Amino acid sequence: MAIIDLNSDVGESFGNWKMGDDAAIFRSVSSANVACGFHAGDPSTIAQTCRDAVAGGVTIGAHVGYRDLAGFGRRFLDCTPTELADDVLYQMGALQALAQAAGAQIRYVKPHGALYNTIVHHEAQAQAVVDAVRAFGGDLPLLLLPGSVALAKAEAAGVRGVAEAFADRAYNPDGTLVSRREPGAVIHDADTVVGNMVRLAQTGKITAIDGSTITVEAESICVHGDTPGSVAMAAAVRAGLESAGVTVRSFA
Amino acid sequence: MAIIDLNSDVGESFGNWKMGDDAAIFRSVSSANVACGFHAGDPSTIAQTCRDAVAGGVTIGAHVGYRDLAGFGRRFLDCTPTELADDVLYQMGALQALAQAAGAQIRYVKPHGALYNTIVHHEAQAQAVVDAVRAFGGDLPLLLLPGSVALAKAEAAGVRGVAEAFADRAYNPDGTLVSRREPGAVIHDADTVVGNMVRLAQTGKITAIDGSTITVEAESICVHGDTPGSVAMAAAVRAGLESAGVTVRSFA
Amino acid sequence: MAIIDLNSDVGESFGNWKMGDDAAIFRSVSSANVACGFHAGDPSTIAQTCRDAVAGGVTIGAHVGYRDLAGFGRRFLDCTPTELADDVLYQMGALQALAQAAGAQIRYVKPHGALYNTIVHHEAQAQAVVDAVRAFGGDLPLLLLPGSVALAKAEAAGVRGVAEAFADRAYNPDGTLVSRREPGAVIHDADTVVGNMVRLAQTGKITAIDGSTITVEAESICVHGDTPGSVAMAAAVRAGLESAGVTVRSFA
Amino acid sequence: MAIIDLNSDVGESFGNWKMGDDAAIFRSVSSANVACGFHAGDPSTIAQTCRDAVAGGVTIGAHVGYRDLAGFGRRFLDCTPTELADDVLYQMGALQALAQAAGAQIRYVKPHGALYNTIVHHEAQAQAVVDAVRAFGGDLPLLLLPGSVALAKAEAAGVRGVAEAFADRAYNPDGTLVSRREPGAVIHDADTVVGNMVRLAQTGKITAIDGSTITVEAESICVHGDTPGSVAMAAAVRAGLESAGVTVRSFA
Repeated sequence: MAIIDLNSDVGESFGNWKMGDDAAIFRSVSSANVACGFHAGDPSTIAQTCRDAVAGGVTIGAHVGYRDLAGFGRRFLDCTPTELADDVLYQMGALQALAQAAGAQIRYVKPHGALYNTIVHHEAQAQAVVDAVRAFGGDLPLLLLPGSVALAKAEAAGVRGVAEAFADRAYNPDGTLVSRREPGAVIHDADTVVGNMVRLAQTGKITAIDGSTITVEAESICVHGDTPGSVAMAAAVRAGLESAGVTVRSFA
Repeated sequence: MAIIDLNSDVGESFGNWKMGDDAAIFRSVSSANVACGFHAGDPSTIAQTCRDAVAGGVTIGAHVGYRDLAGFGRRFLDCTPTELADDVLYQMGALQALAQAAGAQIRYVKPHGALYNTIVHHEAQAQAVVDAVRAFGGDLPLLLLPGSVALAKAEAAGVRGVAEAFADRAYNPDGTLVSRREPGAVIHDADTVVGNMVRLAQTGKITAIDGSTITVEAESICVHGDTPGSVAMAAAVRAGLESAGVTVRSFA
Repeated sequence: MAIIDLNSDVGESFGNWKMGDDAAIFRSVSSANVACGFHAGDPSTIAQTCRDAVAGGVTIGAHVGYRDLAGFGRRFLDCTPTELADDVLYQMGALQALAQAAGAQIRYVKPHGALYNTIVHHEAQAQAVVDAVRAFGGDLPLLLLPGSVALAKAEAAGVRGVAEAFADRAYNPDGTLVSRREPGAVIHDADTVVGNMVRLAQTGKITAIDGSTITVEAESICVHGDTPGSVAMAAAVRAGLESAGVTVRSFA
Repeated sequence: MAIIDLNSDVGESFGNWKMGDDAAIFRSVSSANVACGFHAGDPSTIAQTCRDAVAGGVTIGAHVGYRDLAGFGRRFLDCTPTELADDVLYQMGALQALAQAAGAQIRYVKPHGALYNTIVHHEAQAQAVVDAVRAFGGDLPLLLLPGSVALAKAEAAGVRGVAEAFADRAYNPDGTLVSRREPGAVIHDADTVVGNMVRLAQTGKITAIDGSTITVEAESICVHGDTPGSVAMAAAVRAGLESAGVTVRSFA
């Protein structure tokens, strides 16, 4: 029987600024990537998000990012590995305290934005993230892009790496994502997205942009919750998976 | 046999800005109030401070403050109790992760600067700090000014409150500190300071500014490390206590 | 012939977080209180807001606030008068450079949020704001609550104080605003609001919450743009004033 | 008769954290690169620095940097050109208001730290800095590394580029700086430094690390003020230039 996780970014409000419809997304996902305050998420937003995750039976992960509120963690920051490892640990601990107050624990780590993309190839920053996760303890897995350098470094360090697929993104025949600069990179048709994800969950295969069938190793599927359309898409993916008999469940 | 704790603020550097001689102060104190990033202390500074505390056998406490780097946490901020409790939890968790990576745990909480002074009288903020400490778990004590409203609230909530004395401050006959605006508020003579603190540790009594003898309930003595003079004073207090047969040991 | 100004807060987005429908509100107001980066508004948001104000023929004012992004400038911060004056000058200069690049100048200053409310009664902070406006030069007026201590201090210092009314707020018989904690404090009926504001513009009088007629000295009316309802209300006030023959024009 | 400028970074304190001996350095330099709040310098520090510069007859320049207090502006931040140009304008305006309140004007712009190094080669960020300086108006010159891409872009845009030399750095035979990773990169002997700088001011030539004589085009010499040794070195350079009959004067 097929099992897969659905994850989404939550807790991205900051003070008076609201972002995303977390309440809605919690009805669709099994894993919540909770912002930890460096790129988004003030402590009270995080606390409320953790309570909502607990109420919804959703697993909490630390969505760690660069220290860059103005850039929402989407800009590469050339920090040293030591700075980065300490920044990641700091964020994990902060989230952990608020999760614990809500009756939960953080169960995994997912790097955010530019950090996520950087450690696909940046050896030193990838190692720093892995080091931080190990130093935190508790054998937390790291949720990453398949093929990421960080995935290799995680496994070398005895940290479990979990690969994810992207529900609404087209794939190249080599298994990489079609660049957002290319036409067709983002799939807007819900039926196509749902069909792709059901097939992925059941067979580990997906149809690439050229029509060929490729293998994508993924224990989790990333969906979005920042627009009404993406919330509806997430709900469709969840419903589609369950209709097809796939169990949606945290990997952690 | 008399026992007392010596505590000092450490980890107050931020990025490229250095503050205090933590290495020196770690030779004198038994408890380190480690800044948690909201008023001072970046993650790498905190991490190094925790390692140094562990190396020196010094107990780590969370020095939690208002979110105000520009004001060093010395300016009252009229946040809501919910915001404050979540800010305190966030800081405690962040420090805990870095302490744990250094092989330690946070063992107590001491509010910093304007927060410390505010919760002497501000009921809602005092309660918020107590609530955060309880929510964190682990039965951590709160280090506070004797007579602080927060001390009463801590005890009412089942949180251990620990009162501290100030090594270099003069006391009024009623046991309160002489205001810094008054002459003689700060005692600069090391012999006087040492004599006062030995007496306090051995008898629980101290000579007030008017020459009368008063009782000061304190399980810890606060010393400073931000100037060469204060570091020397801290060392003198430590040496004086030990010469007099007083054991310097964490209260936690 | 009656003339009055309509002002609203704009430029309150920050990085990836969007707030308010500035494009819509620019069609209704004559004065734009532009956030300056301390409580809201990153430099690119401010720059775009200034270009939009220029395109819409709207006068630019500096909406200066406490250094508190997490609290959106809505929490009292007990900074010193020197710190506050320098913070205000810093914000005014920053906005001025971006306004100038858009072909405009800042024409007035309006304190934001907790600062606005604090200088109704806080003598030292009121004086600090006035001092900053004077030090900036250019004889900029200060937009304030009628009866504000800052208004008196402005006039004593030779700074023009401009009083404003609030379109959707009920007034007490003594001319103060009905507290938001009281029933009826906020008026939601557009016709009532428009009727009140037309009367105010034409006669300087308004109907208080008890039905009595009171005099409200105001050269400007504050409207909001942070909800679809408030944007519609602002448009109704503008249309209502113009239908009644009132000229809507900046006071600066 | 030879004329040259001496510049140094000042105003780099932040809140309670002090950095540099600005009072001492103001006795040696003709140009002050004043931090603008993004990498260092809070508004009150900036205001005091401007007053001290005016009192010392020192020309004020805007030392603009990346928005990165924790990294002191020394870490590359991959912001967009629009973000960078707006950030630079914001900082220039903020400093200008505080300079004006002190009776001065900003007279030039010098990028700081990682931004300074980045625009040696990063075309888009170099253009963004030049665009901001042009948009600010007033024909301010840009102080840069000789050979910097930003220098070429400045000149193409009609912005005056001013090249600087580094008093205590060794030069390669091709006129570039010896990397700090190489031995001999920093010259610690005051007599050597002074001799080099006098020769540079008088002849435009300097002895490279291999003993060859090279031409260095520089209208300004950068000295440091962040350690007692560097302050003494700056004073020695000033005294040495004046003894040799070189006039030390701002290029602006």
